[in-house]
Amino acid sequence: MSKIKSKILGDMPSEEFKKYGYQLIDWVADYLDNIESNPVLAQVKPGDIKSQLPKEAPRNNESFDEMIEDLNRIIMPGITHWNHPNFMAYFNSTSSGPGILGELLAAAINANGMVWKSNPSGTELEETVLHWFLDMIGLPQNYFGVVYDTASVSSMHAIAAAREHTGLDIRSKGLSGLPKLILYCTEHSHSSIDKGALTLGIGLDGIRKIPTDENFAMIPEKLADAIKGDRAKGSVPFCVVATIGTTSSTAVDPVEEIAKICEREKTWLHVDSAYAGVTAMLPEMKSYFKGMEKADSIVINPHKWLFVPVDFSILYTRKPEILKRAFSLTPEYLKTTEETAINYMDYGIQLGRRFRAIKFWFVLRYFGVEGLKERLGEHLRLAKLFAGWVDENPNFERLAPVYFGTICFRAIPNNILSENELNILNEKLLDSINKSGKLFLVHTKLNGKFTIRVVISGLRMEERHVKLAWEIINSELVKLISS
Amino acid sequence: MSKIKSKILGDMPSEEFKKYGYQLIDWVADYLDNIESNPVLAQVKPGDIKSQLPKEAPRNNESFDEMIEDLNRIIMPGITHWNHPNFMAYFNSTSSGPGILGELLAAAINANGMVWKSNPSGTELEETVLHWFLDMIGLPQNYFGVVYDTASVSSMHAIAAAREHTGLDIRSKGLSGLPKLILYCTEHSHSSIDKGALTLGIGLDGIRKIPTDENFAMIPEKLADAIKGDRAKGSVPFCVVATIGTTSSTAVDPVEEIAKICEREKTWLHVDSAYAGVTAMLPEMKSYFKGMEKADSIVINPHKWLFVPVDFSILYTRKPEILKRAFSLTPEYLKTTEETAINYMDYGIQLGRRFRAIKFWFVLRYFGVEGLKERLGEHLRLAKLFAGWVDENPNFERLAPVYFGTICFRAIPNNILSENELNILNEKLLDSINKSGKLFLVHTKLNGKFTIRVVISGLRMEERHVKLAWEIINSELVKLISS
Repeated sequence: MSKIKSKILGDMPSEEFKKYGYQLIDWVADYLDNIESNPVLAQVKPGDIKSQLPKEAPRNNESFDEMIEDLNRIIMPGITHWNHPNFMAYFNSTSSGPGILGELLAAAINANGMVWKSNPSGTELEETVLHWFLDMIGLPQNYFGVVYDTASVSSMHAIAAAREHTGLDIRSKGLSGLPKLILYCTEHSHSSIDKGALTLGIGLDGIRKIPTDENFAMIPEKLADAIKGDRAKGSVPFCVVATIGTTSSTAVDPVEEIAKICEREKTWLHVDSAYAGVTAMLPEMKSYFKGMEKADSIVINPHKWLFVPVDFSILYTRKPEILKRAFSLTPEYLKTTEETAINYMDYGIQLGRRFRAIKFWFVLRYFGVEGLKERLGEHLRLAKLFAGWVDENPNFERLAPVYFGTICFRAIPNNILSENELNILNEKLLDSINKSGKLFLVHTKLNGKFTIRVVISGLRMEERHVKLAWEIINSELVKLISS
Repeated sequence: MSKIKSKILGDMPSEEFKKYGYQLIDWVADYLDNIESNPVLAQVKPGDIKSQLPKEAPRNNESFDEMIEDLNRIIMPGITHWNHPNFMAYFNSTSSGPGILGELLAAAINANGMVWKSNPSGTELEETVLHWFLDMIGLPQNYFGVVYDTASVSSMHAIAAAREHTGLDIRSKGLSGLPKLILYCTEHSHSSIDKGALTLGIGLDGIRKIPTDENFAMIPEKLADAIKGDRAKGSVPFCVVATIGTTSSTAVDPVEEIAKICEREKTWLHVDSAYAGVTAMLPEMKSYFKGMEKADSIVINPHKWLFVPVDFSILYTRKPEILKRAFSLTPEYLKTTEETAINYMDYGIQLGRRFRAIKFWFVLRYFGVEGLKERLGEHLRLAKLFAGWVDENPNFERLAPVYFGTICFRAIPNNILSENELNILNEKLLDSINKSGKLFLVHTKLNGKFTIRVVISGLRMEERHVKLAWEIINSELVKLISS
């Protein structure tokens, strides 16, 4: 009886899995081959997608053919195509063939590496590829690495370690009886730093935004002053976050000088290089990363600019025992006897842990270090090229230095409009660019100026895409002015 | 020039992607077909895997053939096979064909749903499938749902919302000047609750473990007393966590009575049903979930017992505006104009968001609601069957009621050993079971007793696997006693 029943129950039969598996592999290959035929930014309105979906789950099983049909008919028109080479918004993330196939395997194996023994290969492969990557970016091997899902979570863990590092026994007693803890960053630090501090009970008024210079980089003297002032008030300066490659303008905080202050003040230094950190692989970029090796913790996201599908964010720390002290709690059912092994659950809030190392392993091996460097080098070249076009054109002005793959600029047609008019114009310009479906950009504000950002970091980006982006920007500007 | 260069750069060519894609689809099909030929628990020692891996990343690109060879030769022997039908440890998670194919698509599309416009279909499909699931488990539609990676993160967000719900303006001011916040749970609540409270700055001494009854369920009167006592001391009771299906023994806290206390005390009620929540789909299980619809927040993990690959944890809340108030922060580059749409980044710490909805959509449609119910029903039947075998055998005793798919028991051969001897014996028994490679179980402690847990929730588990598990347990016991 149970034998017969088990044929009705269980998983999809393997013949069916193969049939639709091949189909979806073809689907993916075709999707990526023809990605440029899609509008970059989904041209839909809120509600357009859900209004086409049933209100209830199907009572009975449906065929995979129907599911693929609905995928094509309903879902795909509502996709914003991050893999499109004219997706130059945010910090773009693009996925590569080896990364995608790595995710396929991770989902199939589905091993959850809470503790070493629940996924020994996952644990040791994670250790291995994170050591490889340390070498690649020129950091010493005494950093301990752990992969989290997002930079937000990596930085939250770093700030939690900083909190633990105060020695105030927050683990046992919480924050309520304690003096105010103060975290230092700049207004250009990523919002995830604020979110991390919020989550950890620091409060927004425990976050000091240190003034920045004309290039949006933290002014170390101002940091030193702020720390001194806070100590005088009885507060506890506990964490400084320096960014190498801020989100707005890719500004570079002077980490080496900041590190000296942190060392003197015994304050945890976290370096957020989620976006730009991968470029530390390139000899010509080393100068931007000076002092990074003095950080207590560093976040770098291979899922941003190293062609690993989302999610893959690395946190490195020189003080893993403090991170562990902040988070480790082992209930009976998770106790293990392999004392020399890493149980990654000890280093964070998340117990569940996908087998993420495999996709990074595949990407590193498939492209090789040199192949990755070549791709990054080409992006940097294209960014300089684009910046040159902006600089040469009197109808535009550049609003920040171009250190990495991001160009911040605005239109200043004929240089006759007021600041307010320029802001309105550039907002309109951005809107019409994005409505064209041919290019997707987002904006930021720099010194109150509405700033358009172009980010060049996609695996499929070639010179022709960067040229096309510039043409679209120019032609939309002409349309706007003449309308 | 750039044209030629772009051929060398870029992604894996699509023909190569297809070739290895098909190969890996076959690999997955074969893996799942033959999974029983593997030891369940990896039979390796710490260091065995990493010692076989190179110390450095490859300088030049390697062939996919080599990568697959290393996968088979080095990685696979170090895998603990969660999809193996005799993986009966922890709360098992198994992945299904449609779930795996959903992950393949998510990795290929790689859309990051930070805001609605960065992945409209992802956002609206997530909304849709979470509304479907509310119906499936009999919760009212006024719950707002959001998918996080793990139950740990879901519960941390719930506790953060509870903290915000106090009205103490923790967002602005942090916890340092405030009275002590107190969270209530039991010693059987999951360690993630403690980790969440730790992270949020509550401190371990802000966690009250309310006494439990003979079935390991919270005693509501003790909760009421504790809250009263804490208020008298000037502390702020802010959150009660009730569990439906605890990790140790799947105990069920009396949510209905706890909810009344929370309502009276204006304290946030979070229900952790990460494991058992999916069984609320079955009419015969409704009684375990009485009062759940009064919770302020609920966590349920389809990646645990609904065949969705890790990660997929749902948090439902009736008070999304409070969750949003706790976490929402919008920097300029993330400001959008679609005011009626959900931007999921507003509901949590994580900005990055994988396109997870697609795998859940595939699983729900491929199996259908009835198909999923049949599978859960069969697991519940098998668990009762196993419990019966334990109960009938004088060499074993059951140590907790069997409500769901988990059986807690220990060997008591001839009923002549002391408690201490029994603990030692059962620990040895578990060790020899796991070393057999044929079955993987973990233990817990209940009333100081070393307790073996059998968890029946895998997609591929049939009656024969449960029988085999029982045979192995018995034969290893015989070996132990006669040795």
